[in-house]
Amino acid sequence: MAFGEAGGAVGYLIGEANQGMRYMFTMMNTARLSVGVQGLSIAERAYQDALRYAQERRQGRAVGAPPGEQSPIVEHPDVRRMLLTMKAYIEAMRALLYTNAVSIDLARYHHDQAEREARRELVELLTPISKAWCTDLGVTVASIGLQVHCGMGYVEETGVAQYWRDSRIAPIYEGTNGIQAIDLVTRKIPMRDGGVVTDLLAQIEVLDRELAAAGPELAEMRPALASGVSAVREATDWIMSHGAAEPNDALAGATPYLRLFGLVVGGWLLARSALAASRLLPGAGDSDAAFLRDKIGTARFYAGQLLPEAVGLLPAVTAGAGPLFQVDLSRAALG
Amino acid sequence: MAFGEAGGAVGYLIGEANQGMRYMFTMMNTARLSVGVQGLSIAERAYQDALRYAQERRQGRAVGAPPGEQSPIVEHPDVRRMLLTMKAYIEAMRALLYTNAVSIDLARYHHDQAEREARRELVELLTPISKAWCTDLGVTVASIGLQVHCGMGYVEETGVAQYWRDSRIAPIYEGTNGIQAIDLVTRKIPMRDGGVVTDLLAQIEVLDRELAAAGPELAEMRPALASGVSAVREATDWIMSHGAAEPNDALAGATPYLRLFGLVVGGWLLARSALAASRLLPGAGDSDAAFLRDKIGTARFYAGQLLPEAVGLLPAVTAGAGPLFQVDLSRAALG
Repeated sequence: MAFGEAGGAVGYLIGEANQGMRYMFTMMNTARLSVGVQGLSIAERAYQDALRYAQERRQGRAVGAPPGEQSPIVEHPDVRRMLLTMKAYIEAMRALLYTNAVSIDLARYHHDQAEREARRELVELLTPISKAWCTDLGVTVASIGLQVHCGMGYVEETGVAQYWRDSRIAPIYEGTNGIQAIDLVTRKIPMRDGGVVTDLLAQIEVLDRELAAAGPELAEMRPALASGVSAVREATDWIMSHGAAEPNDALAGATPYLRLFGLVVGGWLLARSALAASRLLPGAGDSDAAFLRDKIGTARFYAGQLLPEAVGLLPAVTAGAGPLFQVDLSRAALG
Repeated sequence: MAFGEAGGAVGYLIGEANQGMRYMFTMMNTARLSVGVQGLSIAERAYQDALRYAQERRQGRAVGAPPGEQSPIVEHPDVRRMLLTMKAYIEAMRALLYTNAVSIDLARYHHDQAEREARRELVELLTPISKAWCTDLGVTVASIGLQVHCGMGYVEETGVAQYWRDSRIAPIYEGTNGIQAIDLVTRKIPMRDGGVVTDLLAQIEVLDRELAAAGPELAEMRPALASGVSAVREATDWIMSHGAAEPNDALAGATPYLRLFGLVVGGWLLARSALAASRLLPGAGDSDAAFLRDKIGTARFYAGQLLPEAVGLLPAVTAGAGPLFQVDLSRAALG
């Protein structure tokens, strides 16, 4: 770009002088949620294509299928794992982004001042998670969708390689995901001395008691959710206590902390969806019932097989900066 | 492609009739290790570029840096986490692939028949892990390298976006990574009724005792390694006992099982490198000492912060096929 080639450029002041950075952040904060939605959207499109392909494409004979017949690959457990992983992450992302979005409205328009304030705090807390967790997952889910298509995904004619490429910008722009994580640990966790996180975890524990009362199918999700909550609590306490004295210790754990938080919030919201679905099931018609049962099945899959990753992230959050500086990264790499 | 447009194509029989598939697998098995090396190679190149960029590019002031000065981004903890994650995975992959490769030679040429046989079995076990784990990590590491470059990574002029794109074919060809995982659980684990896995885990436990005797810095890696070994043992036992009765149960856990196995083998080999490095340190000159200390630091980072993911993978291995079939994937996705 070259401005003013013919006789100089003219600038116009928009708003008041010296407020540009502040104005820019109005755009930026809104954009963060929108970029999170971009992660979700690409993931959803990748899932629609992968599911359709897996229903049509025949290869190999699934266990129990009649001899002499190739099965649609959706019947193979490993392919189902890919599809269900995509679906579960997508539903978790959608629930998070909607919770974030509705909280923006309630923070502005709820009749109760205390609720407006609580929602404002929740928006502050969730926005970096919405942006970073959902855009990382956008890449992950698009990549799984490509893998479902196998070689047909890598070549261009199916279009799914483009989803994967396009998804890759979202973890970078409107504040990299590393910056979102730093925002989370240095500005968001410390709100009300950790009180905003505590309030959110308390909400998850309320849900836990409802799950306990809702029968064995839903209660099965409780141990993973409880482990997740306790990991977030331990991680938050660690960052609050160490980060104050040594900022690098908080910065060092920022990215795994955000990932941990996203996983657990996702587990909470999916379990809540499953509970709502189970309450609607008795009165539902056939088509709704199928949808509601899938909601429950997807939430249980997430709790049983994706959420347990949370516990594995805790050691990286609480290791501090020491291990990151004990290796000398000032020399050139070998080769 | 169109063969024989002008008067028909001529075919030549290579080798004996009806042996083509067997011959093809000679190529395929060799190719599996080579494709694993492709994952490592792209990862290494991505790391070299990302490290150099992080050493040069200045942005923001690191904690403790003089006021008024922008720091090279390698000084920021979150960037160091990315670089060290790349480096640790690369060293784990290289150790695995070399172990696999040297075992091919020893399986052919070792003077001792029992050792030849043990190495042949180890090659059978490790080859699907070398292919699938290293190619998945090739994509992961190339993606982290792109992220280190931020917007400059997404645009084309640095060349690192191409590493990421090129890495994506390797989990697909020469047998998808899903097929490698199925090979691992259905053909490799059952060798000698699980004895080959047992032998490998016993080797890791021998190392564990050596680490215990090697001082606190190395001993610190023991708990993560022990948890990893116990996760692999539990996962293997589960697959051996359930997979025989219900093949879909083994197939359902194949991919997380392979990932778990790769992580633990990587942890074992890095800990072994660290032990070797610590033994060489006392007699080493300055330059070698720096290299050896980095070996130890990298292995400790892996054990402390990457290996704990292993435990989170276990529930997905031992869940069986049930959860994958409880959601109806025969209808179209919404939208």
